[in-house]
Amino acid sequence: MKSVRLGIIGFGGMGQFHARNIMEGKIPRLDVVAAADADTSRFAHFPQLKSFSSGHDLIRSGEVDAVLIATPHYAHTEIGIAALKAGLHVLVEKPISVHRADCEKLNAAHKNPRQVYAAMFNQRTDPRYVKIRDLVKSGEIGEVRRINWIITNWFRTAAYYSSGSWRATWAGEGGGVLLNQCPHNLDLFYWIFGQPSRVHGFCQFGRYHPIEVEDDVTAYFEMPAGAHASFIASTGEAPGTNRLEITAERGRLVCENDRLTWLKNEVPMSEFSSTATKGFAVPKTTEVDLPFDGPGEQHVGILKNFVAAILNGAPLIAPAAEGIYSVELANAVLLSQWTGKSVALPMSGATYKRWLNKKITESKSAMVSPGK
Amino acid sequence: MKSVRLGIIGFGGMGQFHARNIMEGKIPRLDVVAAADADTSRFAHFPQLKSFSSGHDLIRSGEVDAVLIATPHYAHTEIGIAALKAGLHVLVEKPISVHRADCEKLNAAHKNPRQVYAAMFNQRTDPRYVKIRDLVKSGEIGEVRRINWIITNWFRTAAYYSSGSWRATWAGEGGGVLLNQCPHNLDLFYWIFGQPSRVHGFCQFGRYHPIEVEDDVTAYFEMPAGAHASFIASTGEAPGTNRLEITAERGRLVCENDRLTWLKNEVPMSEFSSTATKGFAVPKTTEVDLPFDGPGEQHVGILKNFVAAILNGAPLIAPAAEGIYSVELANAVLLSQWTGKSVALPMSGATYKRWLNKKITESKSAMVSPGK
Repeated sequence: MKSVRLGIIGFGGMGQFHARNIMEGKIPRLDVVAAADADTSRFAHFPQLKSFSSGHDLIRSGEVDAVLIATPHYAHTEIGIAALKAGLHVLVEKPISVHRADCEKLNAAHKNPRQVYAAMFNQRTDPRYVKIRDLVKSGEIGEVRRINWIITNWFRTAAYYSSGSWRATWAGEGGGVLLNQCPHNLDLFYWIFGQPSRVHGFCQFGRYHPIEVEDDVTAYFEMPAGAHASFIASTGEAPGTNRLEITAERGRLVCENDRLTWLKNEVPMSEFSSTATKGFAVPKTTEVDLPFDGPGEQHVGILKNFVAAILNGAPLIAPAAEGIYSVELANAVLLSQWTGKSVALPMSGATYKRWLNKKITESKSAMVSPGK
Repeated sequence: MKSVRLGIIGFGGMGQFHARNIMEGKIPRLDVVAAADADTSRFAHFPQLKSFSSGHDLIRSGEVDAVLIATPHYAHTEIGIAALKAGLHVLVEKPISVHRADCEKLNAAHKNPRQVYAAMFNQRTDPRYVKIRDLVKSGEIGEVRRINWIITNWFRTAAYYSSGSWRATWAGEGGGVLLNQCPHNLDLFYWIFGQPSRVHGFCQFGRYHPIEVEDDVTAYFEMPAGAHASFIASTGEAPGTNRLEITAERGRLVCENDRLTWLKNEVPMSEFSSTATKGFAVPKTTEVDLPFDGPGEQHVGILKNFVAAILNGAPLIAPAAEGIYSVELANAVLLSQWTGKSVALPMSGATYKRWLNKKITESKSAMVSPGK
């Protein structure tokens, strides 16, 4: 195979965005040849594509080597399983599924290691997060002690939420800011720090918008080694904040406003504390600016990596199997709010699914069944 | 009365610090004439003071019009009640007591409105907090929606904690960072935003130091009108952070590194959200730097205000009766950690006292009875 024939399933905003990137030649060795959507009017501006009204028909067509799944969230599982069973390579938009039980089903369908199974976690290509991850994983900043991520610059207006009846409903999206906007941040959290062992969540539902799902969240994560994190997200705040603060033994790293700074301890803080002779002494610090280049390749970078994995066996930036972690975090925050209790991870996918189905049943929104 | 004769009860570090400030003439119309401490060696450098080995003797001496109570925390209640009953004006160090039930007893002893009863919340004189409070209370920044205060620059070494056997014990101090360092911040929180209606706390005990009390805390506060706050404190982090972020309808206020900035919305965020026609639109903002002068008068300012209240009936900057709020917040965070449940405010002082006494009884520290 010299190039990859791609079909895009789900041809709304994101599906068309990816198609344009590919057609503009931004991803060598990748050709978009087909697309599927129940709303066939969406193909009007893409006459060069083979079009299908059903993703299953596209999968069975023999026209493609790989699919990119950009349907509403709930449909990812079923379409993804069908594509994997058909032997296709699969790139799935975030979140890979709506809840942990569906993630488990989808991941279980990936049996053939030669089939590439990736997720569109484009923020993993952002140089600032790559740099932060390097500093954490290499141990350069020492043991991580505390994390504070305020990620409230996901402002959305009421008009955004009224642009589709499926939006911000339990049946249509399966959640709010945690399922639609935050999968990126929750994935980065997992990717940089690993998965928490326990989650406590505080959610407000429809606080800023006339919606039934959460649009304002504070979560407390306990990490297996004793570190902890506060994760704060909202679609109602303007101007929002995106500030990630990491306190580690060798100093404090802050990423905010396109700046990454490390206030570096000359002596690791715990070592200093246990050896200092004075009660009010503090370690000396040096401020280090860590430059990085722009936002990185983002979606194009993930597509290039997907192609390189198929054609050259390159390691994936974002294996889809890891998508279960960000979904589980989102689920755990909501479950904690509903039960008033902390949730230990790994959590039960079945328990969460029961709670979610209850929310769908009790919903007063127009959309009352999962949007498959 | 032309000037106020003051006695200082508890003549350790803080008591002597206040005595020096007064002797240096920094507070007109205030004379320190007496001091009391069980450790009489502490008077060695203060031959000009009438000295007492017991606070009660000082109170009964007839030598003073007012007392400043700077004993270990637990003793504030008993000494404060005795001084109020003796008709003296009282200035009490923070925290006014260790737990809510003691605050209630102490406050109840203040029956005569002509007796001045104040607390040493010196940070209320800091121009940055005065400015923030004005912006909040005047409504200039609009309804407050979310608060994030990371106040982890209370770094203390192991040597600090081993400098006194009473330090960082349930019996000696009744708590850790919440009772010793954070009363200022919890008081400012109450003073600026009002008292939360519900508290959830996550505490780690002896995380950074060989102590039995909390040295690392994250708390989630729910405010009566729907706003919420994350309050994060530690004595183990270096370099620490002191960053207060307030999100309100008219923009975001951030106080950090001696800088106070307001990213001001042209249109309040909720109004913008409900009237915008585009889903991804955001209100325009202007960045405003709010200058302020240094740290203010601090302890000297509180002492001056105490004298002005006694001699001229000036309103108090920090009425001691308000000290119950910061104590209750500290108690609620601990109680929430111990019970694993949120705590509704006002909380039961008796319930907390039972829990605290249990901690004292179970303590393995050398100090096993309240340090009165």
